[in-house]
Amino acid sequence: MLKIGILGGGQLGRMLLQAAANYPVETFVMENDADCPAAHLCNHFRKGDIKDFDAVYAFGKGLDAITIEIESVNTDALEKLEAEGIKVYPKPAVIKTIRNKILQKQFYKENEIPTSDFIVTQTLDELKNHIGYLPAVHKIGVGGYDGRGVQVIKTTADIEKGFDAPSILEKMVTIKKEIAQIVAVNEKRETALYPPVDMVFDPDLNLLDYQVSPADLPEKTLWKVEAISLAVVKALKSPGIFAVELFVDDKDDVYVNETAPRVHNSGHHTIEANYSSQFDMLWRVMLGYPLGNTEHIVPAAIVNILGAEGFTGEVNYEGLNEVLQIENAFVHIYGKKQTKPGRKMGHITILSKEKQELIHQANRIKNTLRVTSHQSNQPQK
Amino acid sequence: MLKIGILGGGQLGRMLLQAAANYPVETFVMENDADCPAAHLCNHFRKGDIKDFDAVYAFGKGLDAITIEIESVNTDALEKLEAEGIKVYPKPAVIKTIRNKILQKQFYKENEIPTSDFIVTQTLDELKNHIGYLPAVHKIGVGGYDGRGVQVIKTTADIEKGFDAPSILEKMVTIKKEIAQIVAVNEKRETALYPPVDMVFDPDLNLLDYQVSPADLPEKTLWKVEAISLAVVKALKSPGIFAVELFVDDKDDVYVNETAPRVHNSGHHTIEANYSSQFDMLWRVMLGYPLGNTEHIVPAAIVNILGAEGFTGEVNYEGLNEVLQIENAFVHIYGKKQTKPGRKMGHITILSKEKQELIHQANRIKNTLRVTSHQSNQPQK
Repeated sequence: MLKIGILGGGQLGRMLLQAAANYPVETFVMENDADCPAAHLCNHFRKGDIKDFDAVYAFGKGLDAITIEIESVNTDALEKLEAEGIKVYPKPAVIKTIRNKILQKQFYKENEIPTSDFIVTQTLDELKNHIGYLPAVHKIGVGGYDGRGVQVIKTTADIEKGFDAPSILEKMVTIKKEIAQIVAVNEKRETALYPPVDMVFDPDLNLLDYQVSPADLPEKTLWKVEAISLAVVKALKSPGIFAVELFVDDKDDVYVNETAPRVHNSGHHTIEANYSSQFDMLWRVMLGYPLGNTEHIVPAAIVNILGAEGFTGEVNYEGLNEVLQIENAFVHIYGKKQTKPGRKMGHITILSKEKQELIHQANRIKNTLRVTSHQSNQPQK
Repeated sequence: MLKIGILGGGQLGRMLLQAAANYPVETFVMENDADCPAAHLCNHFRKGDIKDFDAVYAFGKGLDAITIEIESVNTDALEKLEAEGIKVYPKPAVIKTIRNKILQKQFYKENEIPTSDFIVTQTLDELKNHIGYLPAVHKIGVGGYDGRGVQVIKTTADIEKGFDAPSILEKMVTIKKEIAQIVAVNEKRETALYPPVDMVFDPDLNLLDYQVSPADLPEKTLWKVEAISLAVVKALKSPGIFAVELFVDDKDDVYVNETAPRVHNSGHHTIEANYSSQFDMLWRVMLGYPLGNTEHIVPAAIVNILGAEGFTGEVNYEGLNEVLQIENAFVHIYGKKQTKPGRKMGHITILSKEKQELIHQANRIKNTLRVTSHQSNQPQK
């Protein structure tokens, strides 16, 4: 049995391990929190800091392969492991390129992959020299995650919201649609594309609000999305699972926004809605099995379950029983004991051939399910 | 978070724990083999003998609820736990009735549930007094499992194959079809019926060969199957998941063969093919959630993956890559390190709206996938 490790023990690790139990594989997880969502679902859990060289090296040594569920890992250790023959999904060089938004944007440019225009800023002061570039989006180079590290700078009045650190300033695109395209790449460089997904964002939190798969796209736009996503993963030259996020503008031009070199929130519906889920697919890649079938069984929508504003502490799921009664809904609670505002606590997948039904149930779920806390920091409603 | 334990750590426990990871629940498993398929997928594994009073009592004490994945558990300990307020799914009294085939048949008779005629035999000698009852099936009262403990006695020549222990001798029914009907029952005595399943058995091994869901039944036969199955679970008076196995004879009369008071091989397709799988459903029952939707998303077939004859030792899956390329097949390998003839090593689910496609792929898989061993006890082909 191959020994395969995951750096990080959150919900992505949890769902990876649910899928791993369909195959003969010995699983390992490293994470600093022994109570994390994935800790109890692996064969061997190690408490450790995924950013620490020695911890990551010691964890990976002796494994056949290693993967990540978050980009903020010690890539020096992964490079050393890779040099010693341990397979790393994705390659450490890819993680280094992608987790730095400046390098990521430069990578797209170098590889002639369409992406919005940008300039690099080193300091907040420097940002003030680019007023002519506004409206734009300021994105911190390193450390942004789940809506942190991104600021819309419409006018000079917004400049103070920018980052006093190496960042990119992206020309604002008139976004008609946001699309996610998940692509699997195996060791033979064979690829498999999932149907692209329509993403609808919450303008406040910048977190995925709900998504519908397959995306509603004219054929020519679909071709662009697929061709550009394939160009991204081919240029990355690494096996693994990649989630390419793209913008479609008002002229139906398609731009890459960013890429995640791992299983991704935009692919959670594939657990129920597609023959081979993104989690199943990553195991196929790592175990040297044939790529799976990415086709839909039934179209789907996803609603993320986020910690409600104003509640921090031991989690309480209001309205869960009502959601569990929806006949075409699948509940995924990540088992986190503590909630806080905006924290990803779970997701719900809805299956239906009818897009209106998907959107109806997505909205119903958003209005029904509320993640609060018994020890609230505001009066409970 | 509720604390829920499973007695037994085989593939049923494994699939239960895959499903548990969709809900907030703290899971416990007890099993004598620390390397068993479910051991690494729970929050707390305890090595222990599920037949031992002290071990089961100590395991269950402090839990909110406990369930089984096999009937051969210490029911005295479960009764003591039940008396102390720990919920047991199914109730220990049900396990005691069902795991003794004599008591089980008497239960059907007492509750006027149609089942084939039978007599009880205490010894092999006694069997010889019932030649006029042949052809019949001799089933040992206690300890039969997966084809062991069942013998067809057609003529006096077969009597020596019978059991010299308390058994039942069942009148042979002219079987047109074998059906499995999975039913969920919650604490409120609400029930949910899955679509019944057509089971096709291997006459040699008496193990499930392949199954198709939903079963192809005339409406009136379907009604009988559902009504009889509901009568069984209502008479059992216990929450839980029940798999009622039934015969349809040449006159379209329906008889109960036997009942399993737990998740069951005949329901494995529900993982992919139904909205709420049998495993999901049992968690809903135990966590006090509403019952799930038992409807099909897509019809399905299942093929069991059994250890091939002549091979004992470290497992090797011949033809697995070919099966992984079948576009509508889902592979479930249980992760057992050792194979032996007839051992359940995994199953494959096939989804299709076309019954012919289901049967075609089931046969293709049966002819492709072979569980052998590197250290074979016969020359490998």
